[in-house]
Amino acid sequence: MVSTVNDAASGSKVEKHAFSDRVTVRTILTRPDGGAGLAGQRVRVGGWVKTGREQGKGSFAFLEVNDGSCPANLQVIVDASVADLGQLVPTGTCVSVEGLLKNPPEGTKQKIELRVEKVIDVGTVDPAKYPIPKTKLTLEFLRDRIHFRPRTNTISAVARIRNALAYATHTFFQENGFLYIHTPIITTSDCEGAGEMFQVTTLISEAEKIEKELIKNPPPTEADVEAAKLVVKEKGEAVAKLKSEKARKEAISASVAELTKAKENLAKVEERSKLKPGIPQKDGKIDYLQDFFARQAFLTVSGQLQVETYACAVSNVYTFGPTFRAENSHTSRHLAEFWMVEPEIAFADLKDDMNCAEAYVKFLCQWLLDKCLDDMEFMAKNYDKSCIDRLRMVASTAFERISYTEAVDLLLEAVKEGKKFENNVEWGIDLASEHERYLTEVKFQKPVIVYNYPKGIKAFYMRVNDDLKTVAAMDVLVPKVGELIGGSQREERYDVIKSRIEEMGLPLEPYEWYLDLRRFGTVKHCGFGLGFERMILFATGIDNIRDVIPFPRYPGRADL
Amino acid sequence: MVSTVNDAASGSKVEKHAFSDRVTVRTILTRPDGGAGLAGQRVRVGGWVKTGREQGKGSFAFLEVNDGSCPANLQVIVDASVADLGQLVPTGTCVSVEGLLKNPPEGTKQKIELRVEKVIDVGTVDPAKYPIPKTKLTLEFLRDRIHFRPRTNTISAVARIRNALAYATHTFFQENGFLYIHTPIITTSDCEGAGEMFQVTTLISEAEKIEKELIKNPPPTEADVEAAKLVVKEKGEAVAKLKSEKARKEAISASVAELTKAKENLAKVEERSKLKPGIPQKDGKIDYLQDFFARQAFLTVSGQLQVETYACAVSNVYTFGPTFRAENSHTSRHLAEFWMVEPEIAFADLKDDMNCAEAYVKFLCQWLLDKCLDDMEFMAKNYDKSCIDRLRMVASTAFERISYTEAVDLLLEAVKEGKKFENNVEWGIDLASEHERYLTEVKFQKPVIVYNYPKGIKAFYMRVNDDLKTVAAMDVLVPKVGELIGGSQREERYDVIKSRIEEMGLPLEPYEWYLDLRRFGTVKHCGFGLGFERMILFATGIDNIRDVIPFPRYPGRADL
Repeated sequence: MVSTVNDAASGSKVEKHAFSDRVTVRTILTRPDGGAGLAGQRVRVGGWVKTGREQGKGSFAFLEVNDGSCPANLQVIVDASVADLGQLVPTGTCVSVEGLLKNPPEGTKQKIELRVEKVIDVGTVDPAKYPIPKTKLTLEFLRDRIHFRPRTNTISAVARIRNALAYATHTFFQENGFLYIHTPIITTSDCEGAGEMFQVTTLISEAEKIEKELIKNPPPTEADVEAAKLVVKEKGEAVAKLKSEKARKEAISASVAELTKAKENLAKVEERSKLKPGIPQKDGKIDYLQDFFARQAFLTVSGQLQVETYACAVSNVYTFGPTFRAENSHTSRHLAEFWMVEPEIAFADLKDDMNCAEAYVKFLCQWLLDKCLDDMEFMAKNYDKSCIDRLRMVASTAFERISYTEAVDLLLEAVKEGKKFENNVEWGIDLASEHERYLTEVKFQKPVIVYNYPKGIKAFYMRVNDDLKTVAAMDVLVPKVGELIGGSQREERYDVIKSRIEEMGLPLEPYEWYLDLRRFGTVKHCGFGLGFERMILFATGIDNIRDVIPFPRYPGRADL
Repeated sequence: MVSTVNDAASGSKVEKHAFSDRVTVRTILTRPDGGAGLAGQRVRVGGWVKTGREQGKGSFAFLEVNDGSCPANLQVIVDASVADLGQLVPTGTCVSVEGLLKNPPEGTKQKIELRVEKVIDVGTVDPAKYPIPKTKLTLEFLRDRIHFRPRTNTISAVARIRNALAYATHTFFQENGFLYIHTPIITTSDCEGAGEMFQVTTLISEAEKIEKELIKNPPPTEADVEAAKLVVKEKGEAVAKLKSEKARKEAISASVAELTKAKENLAKVEERSKLKPGIPQKDGKIDYLQDFFARQAFLTVSGQLQVETYACAVSNVYTFGPTFRAENSHTSRHLAEFWMVEPEIAFADLKDDMNCAEAYVKFLCQWLLDKCLDDMEFMAKNYDKSCIDRLRMVASTAFERISYTEAVDLLLEAVKEGKKFENNVEWGIDLASEHERYLTEVKFQKPVIVYNYPKGIKAFYMRVNDDLKTVAAMDVLVPKVGELIGGSQREERYDVIKSRIEEMGLPLEPYEWYLDLRRFGTVKHCGFGLGFERMILFATGIDNIRDVIPFPRYPGRADL
């Protein structure tokens, strides 16, 4: 897919970007020789100036140029005879330049640099006005300059890591025979309580449209309607009169035409007189029949239930898409819009589910080590010095697997030995983050899968175990973030799941389609969900989830 | 990632599914020998019965079993001694069975069949009640049974083709150095007019919550507030009195405590007295400061503008996600929720854009020929006999490239020669679907890229050409669906794009961030959008877009 620029003198090739005249910085700098072997080649390079400075009393300038293809910058040297150096050196300037790659003098850090012969394009920057002029800015500061933050080292590294994890996700599931299913974003299945869901509607904009219309063009009064009725009556009488007088055909036709017109006008007036400002109501409630989907609609909180319809037909599937929570959480761990990976496996039980989750997480970690080591080194240097070791450990260590009951016993033991938890430990509680962190970070110091949770704290769709007290659920806990994955074997027995829905006080009707999957050709199946941003926090060691998604949405904020 | 079952007798291996005990039907049937070489192996297989029949006076049953891994069914033979055959034969029954693979008698179609030794699991079906009992059902009928339609040959084949095209998309862009960027679904950039956008809100559910609350627990009346105020006054006076009397400390403290309590109660009463039913208003308009994001929010219609912030920082990016239109279209070509692929290339112009679009479409076509030929053969047999030839033609033919002006000339020529169009042809019109289809299907009989469209019919962000009359836009037209891709070089010149926004009567303020990209370090860049469902229609020859997305959303319908 790529053309090459071949320079006979060097015997080495630089791959030109497929759909541009330029060569990426990655192509030059990420070779085993650091680019040294490319000396002598003529290339075009584009990117943004990270730092620039004039030297030799303004006779030339050094530019550190980055094009986002890798964390490293290319050193670029421009003579004053070639361009206006003052225009090139401000941080953020975009340059497209052509020149010769050369080996710099001995003892410098770089293995290769570009001597510019021709400046093709410059996108200038007024340094006094540039919103992100300095090189070290806090992540909080950058959140208020969302459209420029990808130009920083941190956010561009996160973008490359996020990209790598997304493609690794697809590659893992594709290689294992899973089909990628696009579950719906707009849903009418309110499966976890409407309180946490965003509503999707056209009722408000329709109401506003009508209100504007009515202001511009006030609705007819009752008198207007009566007047229009009167005209119809008069025109009707006129027709009747002409007919009874056996008038000429032409006269009757003309009169009938007038009557038709009057009737049309009356219909219009009556139609408009019904227009009311505000959201349409019926019996004191909002009339959702008038909404776009003729019923209440929401943004999905999970694609699981829907993707199960595909698992119960084509066996192995996954969904990977945005999900939404309208929770008023202002923490560093919650977003209103985030991405989830949710595989679903047919003819498989909880053990298979755990095997799949473990293999997937290991695959992601190994992928980053293989493809993003330079970005990971940046993270280790600037955010979390143990992040690379953590990836290596997870990629190579068998996950500990313990039942919930064993987990509670271990926590109680720890309490006995003097460990203090804020949340009380006893069989039946949902494990708190501090408990999860203790198990994975202190007790085992590796990923831990906890399985078979008490029925009472888990969702209706999880398979009831033979003890009738626990369900076949599992959580994958990892150091740094705690719970990374939650999954379960799904209840495939019609009678059992029906009772569970009823037990929990949920209505049956909205779940009839879900029950159908158990009524007709039911299959043993399981699945899990991985919070994609959690995985990025785990990998990079970055603290705030708002910094690992390109456009974070949270209460009070949805920039762009 | 896969274990293998090795049978020494046959010398051949069957790959077991990675996270299950079973072998997929694909693994058995899609070998070059049709599975013949696997005879003698013991395997476990799971799937759903497509057709089943008892034979030999009920002594055994033939089952055609499909597990979604490929379009072909595995022939499974069960003896009456092994299981209750009546339970196994209904269409839709789920079976998990273990047995020996055997070569069937000479002259049969199959190269391999499974002789069952043990039935592991059965998910039964009552044929009288099964919602999709017959094998031939119309696609319209299936749309009303959305949770079962992936069990049909057509919808499962579409799922595999859709999956293949999605992974091909990621593979193409990843191989060419593009970063996958998750652009936001919820957006506050109302870039194409709110009329067509879905609104995302929590105002309605909050209002409903308050209304319920107020019914259960009526708000305080003015008298209640006055009464609470009076209590505060009395308690205050009591404190003053005790103090002036120099009463005991304990008495004063007790009195102050009562006053504090009275004040707290008043605050609560006053707070609740402000609760009003309905959506919060301010100055006669909806008070969006009370909405979740403290402003109006919508579902995205395109990720382009947002992804440009990344292109203007890390050069080459793409977004692939759901997009939304609240259009009241009931056609076979429109959905309210659909998926778009939108790459954006920095340091690149319209020619590069066309090169990228052509390479991408060719890659998709070749991918389907390489990976999904069996599904494509099903489509050719049942929906569009030319669909495979069309893929081959597109994958191997250079796309015709003509300017808009040339396109109009060709259309006028056709009109002169007697071709009738419903829409008038003259320079300045937007090409109608009939014009596009004529160019690609009749005139050139291959994909056509039309570029340099009149400025007046295109968006403000497209780069103005030197003629000042046209913009650097391009559309890729293909046989069967017409426009498949629309793209453009983006206007990178600050002054020009600012004038264009003003010319079009758009407000500048919402675009300030977009203008910033041109103000600081601007870069020549371009991009395009491909309607993902259009591509599936093109590939499969299926007529209605509602059948190529798992959960179609359109006016009045959003099942599940």
